[in-house]
Amino acid sequence: MKTVVGAGIVALLIALIGTRFWINLLVKRQYGQFVRSDGPQSHSVKRGTPTMGGVVIVGAVVVAYAVAHVATSTPPTASGLLLLGLMLGASFLGFLDDWSKISQQRSLGLSPRAKLIGQAVLGFAFGYLALRFPDERGITPASQYVSFLRDIQWVKLPIILAILWMTFLITAYSNAVNLTDGLDGLATGASGIVFAAYSLINIWQRNQWCGDDIEIQQLCYDVRNPLDLAGIAVALAGACFGFLWWNARPAMIFMGDTGSLALGATMAGMAIFTRTELLLTIMGLLFVVETASSAIQVGYFKLTHGKRFFKMAPIHHHFELLGWDEITVVIRFWIISGIAAAGAFGLFYAEWVVGQ
Amino acid sequence: MKTVVGAGIVALLIALIGTRFWINLLVKRQYGQFVRSDGPQSHSVKRGTPTMGGVVIVGAVVVAYAVAHVATSTPPTASGLLLLGLMLGASFLGFLDDWSKISQQRSLGLSPRAKLIGQAVLGFAFGYLALRFPDERGITPASQYVSFLRDIQWVKLPIILAILWMTFLITAYSNAVNLTDGLDGLATGASGIVFAAYSLINIWQRNQWCGDDIEIQQLCYDVRNPLDLAGIAVALAGACFGFLWWNARPAMIFMGDTGSLALGATMAGMAIFTRTELLLTIMGLLFVVETASSAIQVGYFKLTHGKRFFKMAPIHHHFELLGWDEITVVIRFWIISGIAAAGAFGLFYAEWVVGQ
Repeated sequence: MKTVVGAGIVALLIALIGTRFWINLLVKRQYGQFVRSDGPQSHSVKRGTPTMGGVVIVGAVVVAYAVAHVATSTPPTASGLLLLGLMLGASFLGFLDDWSKISQQRSLGLSPRAKLIGQAVLGFAFGYLALRFPDERGITPASQYVSFLRDIQWVKLPIILAILWMTFLITAYSNAVNLTDGLDGLATGASGIVFAAYSLINIWQRNQWCGDDIEIQQLCYDVRNPLDLAGIAVALAGACFGFLWWNARPAMIFMGDTGSLALGATMAGMAIFTRTELLLTIMGLLFVVETASSAIQVGYFKLTHGKRFFKMAPIHHHFELLGWDEITVVIRFWIISGIAAAGAFGLFYAEWVVGQ
Repeated sequence: MKTVVGAGIVALLIALIGTRFWINLLVKRQYGQFVRSDGPQSHSVKRGTPTMGGVVIVGAVVVAYAVAHVATSTPPTASGLLLLGLMLGASFLGFLDDWSKISQQRSLGLSPRAKLIGQAVLGFAFGYLALRFPDERGITPASQYVSFLRDIQWVKLPIILAILWMTFLITAYSNAVNLTDGLDGLATGASGIVFAAYSLINIWQRNQWCGDDIEIQQLCYDVRNPLDLAGIAVALAGACFGFLWWNARPAMIFMGDTGSLALGATMAGMAIFTRTELLLTIMGLLFVVETASSAIQVGYFKLTHGKRFFKMAPIHHHFELLGWDEITVVIRFWIISGIAAAGAFGLFYAEWVVGQ
């Protein structure tokens, strides 16, 4: 428990204080974001806001994890290291993208294809490794089952398909958070909410962990290292909210792909490790809806040879063009995210209660 | 569990949809709020925004409670009815205040003295009744102990002092939420966060309830009707976030004293019933700080014969005058509230874990 609380506090403080220094550094070096040329007109004033704030988020989580483990003399776990590795890998990919935007002075970055290949390689490596490293009870960080509130016992995939399924989840959520990150603080706040909910899920899985001699054995959770994952989830939530302090309107910094790809990939990894893959579609409803809105827009445009379903995709721009203030869209989308996360956690807990 | 989830959904929907209709009704009848004459200049544009949104919040909670109980054929409990009674009483007091402001066309309302007397009478009646109605195990909704994470065993008050202590808590938090309710969405969001945390506390107290035959008997919680309280907490959180949809910047409606006194009193009542009275100072840190800032301002002004400690009290105006955008103050104060609530829940849960 000390590790969990400690990790959260350290990550929060680093993100809160570190972002301040990071902003100063970037402003001094004149590394500004070049806002997408296809967004609403009103966004062009955001040119020049520093980006790559994800460096601070990711750094805060890694340092918090290290500090919490050193301070309590607890060794790191396989699940913890794999998840941090995934986060760092996705963040590095995002960094390449951000960096190429800055150095080329335009808002394009890596080609979509290069990005997708990078994500697929990362996801595949993660999926492959996550099915290794069994603990003393034979439980690996990930499983070959597709999961909703737990592993679904009748959907066991062959190893290769299981790895591809994980690759898909990681790629999909990386890009989903990336798409959502178009209004000040939107993706940061919504991600913080998801990780806060995962903190509770991990804590509950630790509380009713099959590795312990607990009362209701048939309802226990067969996961690997739930307490360590709780620490990472809390650290991620802390880092997001600490960063949000500076990223909320008026944003003094953006997280960039360095942040959004890392948060999305880690979110998917967390769902895989907690056996709640399909539940993430509810937990992270906003990200799913944002992605769906873009897909619908493109599909509809092609089908109708040029008509638009939304005024602009992703959907947060649609509401802006309907006349909602940017901050109104952000706060209302946060409210939706909070309700979705609460509902998802409610489902998760209710399954346990009903099973009693 | 069905009652809890049901109550939350119903309250949320009523607040979301009901507030829309309430705004239309008030606008049609031209019942606008007269913004305090002592706030910052920039707030004078808010003149005319409808108020008494608290009617919707309170109504949503009461209806949700009723619907959930009727739908699941569960009888209401003593704790539930007492808490709803407290909420309605405080809301009525606030309504008198709001109404007198509207009918007198100025921002003063009831005299501070009349308000305080009303709160004291209400708090006293609640405290008196909350020490009655023992369940089959002899547990009353409130106890004579002062509580932090549980009842503190060495601070048992005589009945009359216990009632006065509860009266103090109810009066203090009513006024604290009222003071905090000065920026669009600030008090609504922060209250929603507190009630979300109380949902978890109630659920956990239900999970480890002394009335059940549970594993670790010495750590169980001696509270009355935790599940029913969880339903009310979830309904309150749902109602707050549903109302926030319209109350966030740019606010189309204010909750008024009808809302703020009700939320503050209910918060205190919830702390009393869950035996976490002193924990509420952390859980509702924002409200405590706002009140303290006003007290410091007044005290300092008197001591120094006219100097001001803050540019303006309560403290949210201080930051506005420092040049922060209103929405920046609100979002940062929400972040602080969220962290404080998470910390408070962390403490509460850690006490249980460490005790194992």
